[in-house]
Amino acid sequence: MDAEAKRTEEWAEVTPDAARRLVTAAVHAFAERGYHATTTRDIAGRAGMSPAALYIHYKTKEELLFQISSVGHRLALGILEDAVDADGTPAERLANAVRSFVRWHAEHHTTARVVQYELGALSEEHYAEIVGLRRDVDGAVRSILQDGVDAADFDVPDLPGTTLAVLSLCIDVARWFSADGRRSPDEVGLLYADLVLRMVGAAPRPAG
Amino acid sequence: MDAEAKRTEEWAEVTPDAARRLVTAAVHAFAERGYHATTTRDIAGRAGMSPAALYIHYKTKEELLFQISSVGHRLALGILEDAVDADGTPAERLANAVRSFVRWHAEHHTTARVVQYELGALSEEHYAEIVGLRRDVDGAVRSILQDGVDAADFDVPDLPGTTLAVLSLCIDVARWFSADGRRSPDEVGLLYADLVLRMVGAAPRPAG
Repeated sequence: MDAEAKRTEEWAEVTPDAARRLVTAAVHAFAERGYHATTTRDIAGRAGMSPAALYIHYKTKEELLFQISSVGHRLALGILEDAVDADGTPAERLANAVRSFVRWHAEHHTTARVVQYELGALSEEHYAEIVGLRRDVDGAVRSILQDGVDAADFDVPDLPGTTLAVLSLCIDVARWFSADGRRSPDEVGLLYADLVLRMVGAAPRPAG
Repeated sequence: MDAEAKRTEEWAEVTPDAARRLVTAAVHAFAERGYHATTTRDIAGRAGMSPAALYIHYKTKEELLFQISSVGHRLALGILEDAVDADGTPAERLANAVRSFVRWHAEHHTTARVVQYELGALSEEHYAEIVGLRRDVDGAVRSILQDGVDAADFDVPDLPGTTLAVLSLCIDVARWFSADGRRSPDEVGLLYADLVLRMVGAAPRPAG
């Protein structure tokens, strides 16, 4: 899938088309200049629309940010929950979760940066809703780690701290990843899955 | 040392006093609203100075950002280089490097966020200078990992990738760390040193 197709797919749930165009315009404007330096006029202009047309879909700039943050968090959470619910040993499920989560943060690094760095601009009510999604993200990783500990496959002295570190490592891919860089999203995912298995003390299993 | 004393110490090398006041005002303004949404008038106001007084010390807003970025990078690099040059086994030196680097990013998370997230706003020439410092930071971590591999203390199949991941893990502390959170900078440093030793496959040594 090319970058453009991925971008469209990312916001597929946002309808109608005009709202989706506004969301993609807002992501790029926020990423380039920051939330506070972007006006609704800038966003409408990028989307080829009038400020009045924007107002039909989003009453405020903050509503746009919340939509971006909400969709972004739910997509990332969905990926993790799929890995939690999949078959396999805890090590296999953890490796898959890390690979998918890293790939998402590499491929959607522009969205992920906006989502992660502009949390402070959300309204109190919207922020509380996003915090709930973040707790679920944390819970998904923690439950795989707990399964590995229960099966005596993992050695994790500090479960909440290790959960935090695993998520932090994956999320920060969005900061440094560049499409022109040496590694593809898949390659970073594979490297990170190996490093995370080491962090949880997952002994390599004999093949077969 | 309290937070205020640490803040002053951070910018001790910036002189005279007026320039230091402008730098601390700029860090907080950039952190709150982003670089592009901040004006030199905002910064001067926060520092209790006139825009004309600011202009004596910094010709542009970008010069202020460069000063912040440059001092921030050099402080972080200094911490790493001290750990590289210290006595001890590669594992001890790596653990110390991670502890100090994490502590710095936790204690100075406001500065670190500005430094990491606003790189794109630097002029081409200033950006090139910062990239040089970032290469040195990378080189410092890489050299400890190489020492551990040479001594057969570490197992690191992908040296550049592991270097990147270790630095990324430490730097991202600045994003999520909160002074009101459950863990002190020291506690995060200890946890992360253990996780990083696991990442490089450093076998725990028998005590004594």
